[in-house]
Amino acid sequence: MSAWSGKLRRICKGFEFNDTETMATVGTVTSVEFPTYLATRGRLIDDAVEAALPPAEQPPQIIHQAMRYSVLGGGKRLRPLLVVASAEACGGNPRAVLPVACAVELIHTYSLIHDDLPAMDNSDTRRGRPTCHIAYGEAIAVLAGDALHALAFDLIARASPASDSPRLLAVSQDIAQSIGTAGMVGGQVLDLLGEGRIFPGGANSPPPAPLAELVPEIHLRKTAALIGACVRAGALLAGADVSTLHALSAYGERLGLAFQIIDDILDVVGDDRVLGKRAGSDAAKATYPAAFGVARSREMAAQLTAQAVEAVAPLGERGVILQELARSLLARER
Amino acid sequence: MSAWSGKLRRICKGFEFNDTETMATVGTVTSVEFPTYLATRGRLIDDAVEAALPPAEQPPQIIHQAMRYSVLGGGKRLRPLLVVASAEACGGNPRAVLPVACAVELIHTYSLIHDDLPAMDNSDTRRGRPTCHIAYGEAIAVLAGDALHALAFDLIARASPASDSPRLLAVSQDIAQSIGTAGMVGGQVLDLLGEGRIFPGGANSPPPAPLAELVPEIHLRKTAALIGACVRAGALLAGADVSTLHALSAYGERLGLAFQIIDDILDVVGDDRVLGKRAGSDAAKATYPAAFGVARSREMAAQLTAQAVEAVAPLGERGVILQELARSLLARER
Repeated sequence: MSAWSGKLRRICKGFEFNDTETMATVGTVTSVEFPTYLATRGRLIDDAVEAALPPAEQPPQIIHQAMRYSVLGGGKRLRPLLVVASAEACGGNPRAVLPVACAVELIHTYSLIHDDLPAMDNSDTRRGRPTCHIAYGEAIAVLAGDALHALAFDLIARASPASDSPRLLAVSQDIAQSIGTAGMVGGQVLDLLGEGRIFPGGANSPPPAPLAELVPEIHLRKTAALIGACVRAGALLAGADVSTLHALSAYGERLGLAFQIIDDILDVVGDDRVLGKRAGSDAAKATYPAAFGVARSREMAAQLTAQAVEAVAPLGERGVILQELARSLLARER
Repeated sequence: MSAWSGKLRRICKGFEFNDTETMATVGTVTSVEFPTYLATRGRLIDDAVEAALPPAEQPPQIIHQAMRYSVLGGGKRLRPLLVVASAEACGGNPRAVLPVACAVELIHTYSLIHDDLPAMDNSDTRRGRPTCHIAYGEAIAVLAGDALHALAFDLIARASPASDSPRLLAVSQDIAQSIGTAGMVGGQVLDLLGEGRIFPGGANSPPPAPLAELVPEIHLRKTAALIGACVRAGALLAGADVSTLHALSAYGERLGLAFQIIDDILDVVGDDRVLGKRAGSDAAKATYPAAFGVARSREMAAQLTAQAVEAVAPLGERGVILQELARSLLARER
C-alpha cells in the first residue's frame, strides 16, 4: 500500500503540469501564418499525446500496446488542435491546455475503436491498417477503448494550475456530456437505429425518422457535440467571457457539422460505384449525400463554414486562425 | 444552438447540487446503529442513483432503457455506500457526496456490462436476469457501458459547492486512475491473460505468472483499486487531512481485497460440484480458492478485514460504522 504515499501527497499538493514556458518557440496566434501555426501546434500536440500514453513496455503490455497502436496510428488531430487554437484565440497559452487537448484525442480514439467492433460497424481496417480488434482481439479492443476513456478524465484533472479549478471542472463536465447519450453515444445509437442494426429484442424504440431529419441529428450528436466541447474547452480554460464562449460554441458546432458533411462527401466521391448505389437507395447509410445528394451537401457544408467564420468575426485578429482552419477543412472537398 | 444558452450560463455560474438540507432525517454517523445506518443511507443512494439516470422515455429510448435496466437491476451499492460512510467518518454531509457516490455505482455497472460481453466473460445472466447484451443486443450493451462511464464523470463535476473544486478534481483524477490500466481495466486484462483468453495475435505479452502471484494482483487492480478510490473520495470531499486519508486509503484497499476474496469463496461454496472441479485444476479461473484453497482464502479475508478495522481505529467513534461495514462483509462468508 506504500505506493499510495506519493499519490496522496500529489493529490493534496495539487497538480504537476508546468505551463511556465514562454511562447518564444511557437509564436503567438496573431504573429504566425496558418501553415506555420498548423505545423508548430501539430508538433506540440503529437509530442504531448505520445507522452500522455503509458509506455508499451509497462505491464500489462498488451493493453498499452493496443492503446498506442490506435492513438498513434495517424489521424488529423483536429479535436486537440481546436482546443489549442480556441484557447489561443482567447489569449491563453497553448501549453497550458495540452492535457485537455490530449484528453479529447484519446476520447475520439476510444470512440473509433468501439465503433469499429464487430457488434457495431464491424470494420476491419482504419487509416490503412487493421483495426484494434483485428490486431489485438475483441476483448482487448473493448478494454483499450475503456482505458483511453478513463485516461482522458485523468488528464483533464491534471491540466495547468493556470486554469482555475471551477473552470476545469466545467470543462470536464462539458466534455463528459458531449460524449454521453445527449452527444456522441446518442448519435451512434441513432446511427444504428437508422440502419436497422439494433438487436430486435430491444425494439420498443420509435421507428427511425426520415433520413433528412435523422442525418443532421446523428451528425450533431456524433461529431459536432464533441467538437463544440473542444472549442469551448479552450475558451473556458483561457478565461473567456460568456459572449466569447457563445461565439466559439456556435463556431464549434457549425464547424463540427460541416466537417462531418465533408467527410461523408469524401467517402462517396472517393468511390463512384458506391455513390451510385447509395444515392438511389432509402436503405442507404445515414450520410448527408444519401439524404440530400452530393451537390446540396456541398452547399450545406459551405454555408455552415461561412457561419462558423462569421461567428468568430467579433474576435478580430485573434479569430483569424480559427477562420483559416474552418476554410481549410472545407477545402478538403476538392 | 440556443440550447447552449442555458448550458453556458450554468457552466459560468457553477454547480447546481443543493446540499443545504440538514441531517435531521438521517441521523449522524455517531448517533445511529449500523442496521439503521445501512437502511437510511441505502435509501438516499437508491433515490440519488435513480434520479441520476436519464428517464427511460427520453430519446433515444433504447440506450436509456438499457442503462436503467443494468443499474437499477439490483446490486449491493457497496461502492456508493463507502463514499458516503467515508465522508461521514470525516465529518462530511452524506448528501453533499451523493453525485460522486452515484458516479462510482455507474462506473461499477459499466464495468459489469462490458465484462459480461461475449468477447470477455460471455455471461448470459447477472443478478438472476439476462445480461445487458442479451436483453438489448451487443451494440447497445457496449454503448450503455460507454454512456454510464461518461455520465459518471459528468456527475463527479456536479458535486456539491461545499466540496472545493481542487479536491473534486483530485477525486475525479483518483477515480479515473483507479479504473484505468493501473486499476480496473488492467485487472481485467490480467484476468483474461491468466485464463489464456487473449487473442493470440497480440501474444507478445509475458506468460502469466503462477496463480498465487497473479490472483492477488488481479483482485487488487480489478476490485480493490476502485473501492480504495471510493473511500478516499468521501474523505477528500469531507476535507480530511493527509493522515486520515492514509488511514482510509489503507482501510479501502484491504476491505476491497477482502470483499473480492469473499466473493470468490461464495462462488465456489455455493456449488460444490464447481468447487470440486476447480480446486484440483491448474487451469482454474483466477480466484483465491483456486490459488490458495477455501480454508486459507477464508483466513486471508479475515486477516484483511482485521487490518481494515485496525486502520480506522484512530478515527475513534466516527470510524465505528466503517468497522461494522467491514465485519458485515466478512460475515457474508457464512
